[in-house]
Amino acid sequence: MSVIDDLASEFARLPGIGRKTAYRLTHHLLKVAPEEACRLARAIDAMAERVRRCSICHNLSESDPCEYCSNPARDRTTICVVEEASDIRAIDSSGGFRGLYHVLGGCLSPLDGIGPDELNVESLQSRLDENVREVIVATNPSVEGEATAAYLHKILDPRGIRVTRLARGLPVGGDLEYADGVTIAQALAGRRVI
Amino acid sequence: MSVIDDLASEFARLPGIGRKTAYRLTHHLLKVAPEEACRLARAIDAMAERVRRCSICHNLSESDPCEYCSNPARDRTTICVVEEASDIRAIDSSGGFRGLYHVLGGCLSPLDGIGPDELNVESLQSRLDENVREVIVATNPSVEGEATAAYLHKILDPRGIRVTRLARGLPVGGDLEYADGVTIAQALAGRRVI
Repeated sequence: MSVIDDLASEFARLPGIGRKTAYRLTHHLLKVAPEEACRLARAIDAMAERVRRCSICHNLSESDPCEYCSNPARDRTTICVVEEASDIRAIDSSGGFRGLYHVLGGCLSPLDGIGPDELNVESLQSRLDENVREVIVATNPSVEGEATAAYLHKILDPRGIRVTRLARGLPVGGDLEYADGVTIAQALAGRRVI
Repeated sequence: MSVIDDLASEFARLPGIGRKTAYRLTHHLLKVAPEEACRLARAIDAMAERVRRCSICHNLSESDPCEYCSNPARDRTTICVVEEASDIRAIDSSGGFRGLYHVLGGCLSPLDGIGPDELNVESLQSRLDENVREVIVATNPSVEGEATAAYLHKILDPRGIRVTRLARGLPVGGDLEYADGVTIAQALAGRRVI
């Protein structure tokens, strides 16, 4: 196998990249200057070498504690629980949250053999000192995400911590006509006084 | 900027990869073992270091002459002219051609300042010894591709070389109902006796 096929098959291992796209990316890198192609290689090396899990919130970061846990400006009374570190970026760039995060590392899925012990639940509980007043469960709006939220509510509620869930409803810019029935039902149930 | 953002912005420079996909790929590499992430980096390095242009046909290859030019089993009487090295793979994997290739490096496009001198036309002419009987012009079926084919016909025909063009018509598995008018017109003009 040539180095061209090698690189294409490495690209094809990435999610959402098929065989044809892999060859298109490879030929793009063949066309640009070698230094530019190598910049991608250097960026991968730097990431693989320097990115670690934060020992507090399990976020992926170059520093430990991560930039959120070590930032004194963040609101330490609220922890937002997410499934994956990649969810933090989506929430933080929304500008709607200035508290701390906690990465579960997935969500409860008995069929896949993922129970509470496989997730970062214990470290979440150890973080809940007297300062923390609210835990926002921002798992995905899927069956597993809901089950995880229900589980967290069950174990955190007795400790006097307010456990909340992200609102379900119509996405902004969405079209009522094309919304699915479950979403509309949730939007109706969660309706607010104007 | 963190190494995560760095890598995402390098991914986003690739064609067809937007900002969100770039972060998805980055987080995929963060999730797999570092050795696996580095395999992609090593593949890029190997490619940037070892792939060169073939001095005969301008194909991208690890060897010079490339695997096609140096293969004694290939038919040396026919040369297939393509725009880019990536087109060779598509044609060769079709199994319909066993001759040699020649990479033009683009096609004629006066608006972009690309004339015959910017393409590998001279080296094509120097390859046309007494053995070569046919040149198949496999440029894309676009206006520029057609103009390039017409130009090659103009300069090669006086030398007694048969210049052919890939057939235009309905793609196999395509649907007549959804074919555009120009394609149907070409399919009619190129109709064949059964």
